[in-house]
Order: sequence, then C-alpha cells, then structure tokens
Amino acid sequence: MTHAEKTESEVLAANARFYRAFSDGDLPSMNALWAQHAPVACLHPGQPLLLGRDAVLRAWRDILEHQPGIELTSQEPSVQLFGDTAIVYCYEAATDQPAHLAATNVFVLEGAEWRMVHHHAGPLAEPRAGRRANDLN
Amino acid sequence: MTHAEKTESEVLAANARFYRAFSDGDLPSMNALWAQHAPVACLHPGQPLLLGRDAVLRAWRDILEHQPGIELTSQEPSVQLFGDTAIVYCYEAATDQPAHLAATNVFVLEGAEWRMVHHHAGPLAEPRAGRRANDLN
Repeated sequence: MTHAEKTESEVLAANARFYRAFSDGDLPSMNALWAQHAPVACLHPGQPLLLGRDAVLRAWRDILEHQPGIELTSQEPSVQLFGDTAIVYCYEAATDQPAHLAATNVFVLEGAEWRMVHHHAGPLAEPRAGRRANDLN
Repeated sequence: MTHAEKTESEVLAANARFYRAFSDGDLPSMNALWAQHAPVACLHPGQPLLLGRDAVLRAWRDILEHQPGIELTSQEPSVQLFGDTAIVYCYEAATDQPAHLAATNVFVLEGAEWRMVHHHAGPLAEPRAGRRANDLN
C-alpha cells in the first residue's frame, strides 16, 4: 500500500465515522470527529452557514437528539488529497433508499487524526437510480 | 496587514474572479481559475458529482454558453485557511435578488496563485431576507 493509499484509507475511515455517529445519534463521537484547533463550518441542506465549533456542534446536538433512527450511509466516496487537507465527495442515502443528497466533507490532519472541518450536504434533483444504501463502498 | 489578512484578501480576490467569470460567461477566465495540477471536482445544485478537470470544465463550457446574462454575486464571504488550502463560504445571489444558494469554494495555492479545486452550491430553503445582490462584501 502506498503512502497515498494509506492516507486515503484513513480519510475514508474518518468519513465513515461521521455517518456512523449520525446514524447512532452519538454526540460524543460527533464531537470527537470535528477538529479541535482548526476552524470549522457546516452547511446543512437548505440552511444558512454555521461558522465555528460552538455553532456547528450546537446544531449537531439538536439534530442528533431528534434523529429518528435514520441509518445514513455514504455512497461512492471519492477522496482528493491536498497535503494535510483532504476532501471526500459522496452521496448520502437514508435507510434502504437511493441516495438523495450529495456531500462535500473536508478533513484536516490534527496530530495523527483526520478531523472534520466542514460538511456541506445538498439535495440531488434526482435520487441516484439503481443504487441503494446497502451498496456501500 | 498581517500575513493571514493578506492571504485572506488574495483568496477573496480569487473567489470574486470566479463570480466575475460566471457573470461574464468568460470561459477562458473560468479555465484559468481552476487548478492546473491539483485534482478538482464540482457539485452544481442538484447535480451529480463532476470529478476531474475535463468533466468540470466541460460542464462550465455548457453552462457559460447558455448563461442568460445573470449577474451572480458572492455575499457575506467567510474565509478559513488550512495552510496552502483555503475555503470560502458564501451565499450566491442572481441579479438584484436576495441570495438563493449557499456555496463552498475550495482553493489551493499553485505557485503564487490561488486556484479553485472545488465548487459546491446548493439551494437555500429561504432566500437571505433583507439582503440584495448589491450588498457586496
């Protein structure tokens, strides 16, 4: 495995932890996933910008407290690396449905950990036909 | 002006050139704005992911050829810096309308130039009330 492949695999693991934390309604994991030192921001579908750790994590607390048992999965993830910054592009699918959102997830290396600095999700005009939440890759 | 302020100002200038190129239907400027070496991607509102320079620029050619004279402006831009990578968050407004889209624009430093590696725009559930395209900042 090359260094780039290893890095890509670590970034994809961090991306998977994000969807796991959402699906489990797990605020401590979500909190641990977001950068501690680097600046953070979040754009939830249709919503105005959340800037800074307090605003971003407060919104996640509200979302996860009311998470109605949706299993949200990442589909067709692609990673692009820019030194100690990485972007994952993926589609998001809720429990057994075709993906209905496209997402940009940005991570930075803090110490030995890839931590999230930005999540932006928005609706697809048409769900990803023929793909289902269990087509994980 | 500190080094960070100077960098932020350069990134904002690159972000402004992106909206200028769109509004002018200027494909050569759009082409020059996107990274030459770093990997690129684009998520237009509602659309599936475009990955790689050929796909991204082909889509821009189609969009700019049919651009019906919309003046698209960036509103309330915020910059976050991660070394040689920068993210601009902003709202997008078309000619004299309140902003109707939120955007994530990612730039990397190539030589002395900040060049775009990712653009993701999605619809706002409600337009930014009370703000108009000429409230530039």
